[in-house]
Amino acid sequence: MTDISAVLDRADRNLPESLDRLFDLVRIPSISTDPAYKEACRKAADWLAVELNTLGFTASVRDTPGHPMVVAHHDAPEGAPHVLFYGHYDVQPVDPLDLWEDDPFEPAIKELEGRKVITGRGTSDDKGQLMTFVEACRAYKDVHGALPCRVTILFEGEEESGSPSLKPFLTENAKELTADYALVCDTGMWDGETPAIAAALRGLVGEEITITAADRDLHSGLYGGAAANPIHILTEILAGLHDETGRITLDRFYEGVEETPSNIKAGWDTLGRDAASFLGEIGLSIPSGEKGRSVLELTWARPTAEVNGIWGGYTGQGFKTVIAAQASAKISFRLVGHQDPIVVRDSFRAYVQSKLPADCSVKFHEHGGSPAIQLSYDSPVLTKAKNALSDEWPKPAVVIGMGGSIPIVGDFQTMLGMESLLVGFGLTDDRIHSPNEKYDLQSFHKGIRSWVRILDALTV
Amino acid sequence: MTDISAVLDRADRNLPESLDRLFDLVRIPSISTDPAYKEACRKAADWLAVELNTLGFTASVRDTPGHPMVVAHHDAPEGAPHVLFYGHYDVQPVDPLDLWEDDPFEPAIKELEGRKVITGRGTSDDKGQLMTFVEACRAYKDVHGALPCRVTILFEGEEESGSPSLKPFLTENAKELTADYALVCDTGMWDGETPAIAAALRGLVGEEITITAADRDLHSGLYGGAAANPIHILTEILAGLHDETGRITLDRFYEGVEETPSNIKAGWDTLGRDAASFLGEIGLSIPSGEKGRSVLELTWARPTAEVNGIWGGYTGQGFKTVIAAQASAKISFRLVGHQDPIVVRDSFRAYVQSKLPADCSVKFHEHGGSPAIQLSYDSPVLTKAKNALSDEWPKPAVVIGMGGSIPIVGDFQTMLGMESLLVGFGLTDDRIHSPNEKYDLQSFHKGIRSWVRILDALTV
Repeated sequence: MTDISAVLDRADRNLPESLDRLFDLVRIPSISTDPAYKEACRKAADWLAVELNTLGFTASVRDTPGHPMVVAHHDAPEGAPHVLFYGHYDVQPVDPLDLWEDDPFEPAIKELEGRKVITGRGTSDDKGQLMTFVEACRAYKDVHGALPCRVTILFEGEEESGSPSLKPFLTENAKELTADYALVCDTGMWDGETPAIAAALRGLVGEEITITAADRDLHSGLYGGAAANPIHILTEILAGLHDETGRITLDRFYEGVEETPSNIKAGWDTLGRDAASFLGEIGLSIPSGEKGRSVLELTWARPTAEVNGIWGGYTGQGFKTVIAAQASAKISFRLVGHQDPIVVRDSFRAYVQSKLPADCSVKFHEHGGSPAIQLSYDSPVLTKAKNALSDEWPKPAVVIGMGGSIPIVGDFQTMLGMESLLVGFGLTDDRIHSPNEKYDLQSFHKGIRSWVRILDALTV
Repeated sequence: MTDISAVLDRADRNLPESLDRLFDLVRIPSISTDPAYKEACRKAADWLAVELNTLGFTASVRDTPGHPMVVAHHDAPEGAPHVLFYGHYDVQPVDPLDLWEDDPFEPAIKELEGRKVITGRGTSDDKGQLMTFVEACRAYKDVHGALPCRVTILFEGEEESGSPSLKPFLTENAKELTADYALVCDTGMWDGETPAIAAALRGLVGEEITITAADRDLHSGLYGGAAANPIHILTEILAGLHDETGRITLDRFYEGVEETPSNIKAGWDTLGRDAASFLGEIGLSIPSGEKGRSVLELTWARPTAEVNGIWGGYTGQGFKTVIAAQASAKISFRLVGHQDPIVVRDSFRAYVQSKLPADCSVKFHEHGGSPAIQLSYDSPVLTKAKNALSDEWPKPAVVIGMGGSIPIVGDFQTMLGMESLLVGFGLTDDRIHSPNEKYDLQSFHKGIRSWVRILDALTV
């Protein structure tokens, strides 16, 4: 650890030009899902490669079957850690355009509720975020002509369209991309004053089932009471997924689920996010899952079984006295810890089969599966980053979980054997994916300073 | 009871002209749902009134807001019973017309699998059936110049379009239409050799429920495990409607449900309609309802709770990790015996409320309710009709139940205080409501003879 005040000062003085560069990048409408913006995506990749090369990286634009990747390397003193920084330069579409107050591709600084914000598509997700890291590197280079860590950068251009080229690219370039750990900058702060590191991300298993009973729809007068009703079978199956305490009943389901350390849970309890505030925002008040656990624990650290869709029989206006031939549901399981998606899927399927009358049948349709990401709550990297962030922001950094999945983190883990440190500076009101996306000027500025501190801290 | 052989002989000799008259009536395209056939409906009513007046009835065509009714009266010797005969002269639409082998409104006699059948729309439902009664009356008049019973006839022209004018018409003309009991000719035989009297018809209560949890659709990653999922609540409610023996769990549900007399059940057991044959036709094999009861008992004499439709969340292609704000289902209850639709509906609603978390809500939407019709299995009228039918056909008549409802029978019961005798000569392969409707010539011929015998039997 060195005296980094000079680097931080430099980052402060660079801010106007850092903003100019971010604005240049935001002006490129790199919407990855829309083929009309294919050239814009390449232009964004080219722009980034040029910037990184100018900074002293060895950067190149790498073709894929879809939009290109940008890969850049920068060396470091012997013995310094090697990090892979990940971000994505593609953005979401902007329609409905008439809901935007400003041109989504003409960024500007505006006042919003007393804060200065940068407006435009991608300012928060993820161009503004990835540029915090680039500008942190620049401040180092400006002051020292060197970086404290060996840095590899991977910028993707398909994150908003399902990352179809990512896995093959990681496979083909595994050696080049593998570092000691990854820094992923695509998440948010806890609040405007409290930085956060996401250490637990739930995995996901998606299943669709269709129960078939009779070989045709039946009249409920003629057959009701004697013929199997697939909706009844389905509702029994789904209702049986939870016991009265909210636990999931599937065999072997809790294998690999560990209790969250009590100090981490105690930290969550201080965040002021209780059932009343968490559920009150969506018109509810009673936690629905396992009894005796906080809403943050339920959504960050406990597995779930949720029915995401159900359909069968007559669903139109009026009434039809039909017994349907089929009934279907889409079910997802959020995984935590070391739950195995294959075990969960197999257990669910065996359970469904066990509840099925002998004259009925079921078809299963798989909708993806990925394990949870559980970083060590006591790993040195996490502790270093936590302290570095706490030094920068008004309030100490918190280690949190995330209810959803970030596929790239799982891919780094399973394909490159690399843990990820998830640090980002987005805020919940950034309106990512929506009209009027913004990024707080403070997120950008203190985000750059945060990376300066983290890069320094990692060298110790 | 008199010697009716002369009347039966006369019916036989009249058959060619009886067929001519039926053909005339079938040629009138009295499709009640299609406004283009409004005049045809009136023409059919006029035709019937003329026929009945010619026969010695006092018949008139009576306007309603929809298609007209035909009401006719014929007196009888002092002390003879008074019957109301009901049929309907309207027919179903005929599309798709290209699936008809013959003109639906140009009836003919054809051979079908060794049987002679009368082809054309309405030959079975219900013009052929109602004409069996008219022609039976004609045979009596031809031989004796009189009828053995006092007869009131009600022919409706809106049965195939929901009978919107029927209830008001019964109310306004209650005194004129009330008889000792009704003869309803709109049902079928058990098989081609076995006549049937329907003595039990299940009632129906229809309900739609919508459960609301959060005030918006939620991301299952962010909220799953903490926020109530209305699909889970709905599946628990629906799965809880039956216990493991197939009984319905609602409070007071079985009030008014009586065991079917063992001699009636024994009769059903001789019909050869076991689970293998009944369920085998629809690709099933295991009766789904209450354990230890035959499929005929389950569908004719036991109440049910069936989910006719269910929907909620994402039901399109692919997967969406959503927790829906709402989930809905349509549920129907088939009623038997003296179950009270109001008790059943109230009990269901109370049950749903009792299963609802305090922060969720439910909306109920009523889809009609009608009690079951349960005629006395040992009533003298039933016994007389059963014996009369057994005399006419190769096999003895059976007293059966019907899984579905026939609203007119309930209306006669509740509005005119009159039980109905349900006798008809349709066969399951008559293709009513479908292209190539037919009525067996034997159904028509022996149907006429059956009414001759029943009218005579009722006088004793």
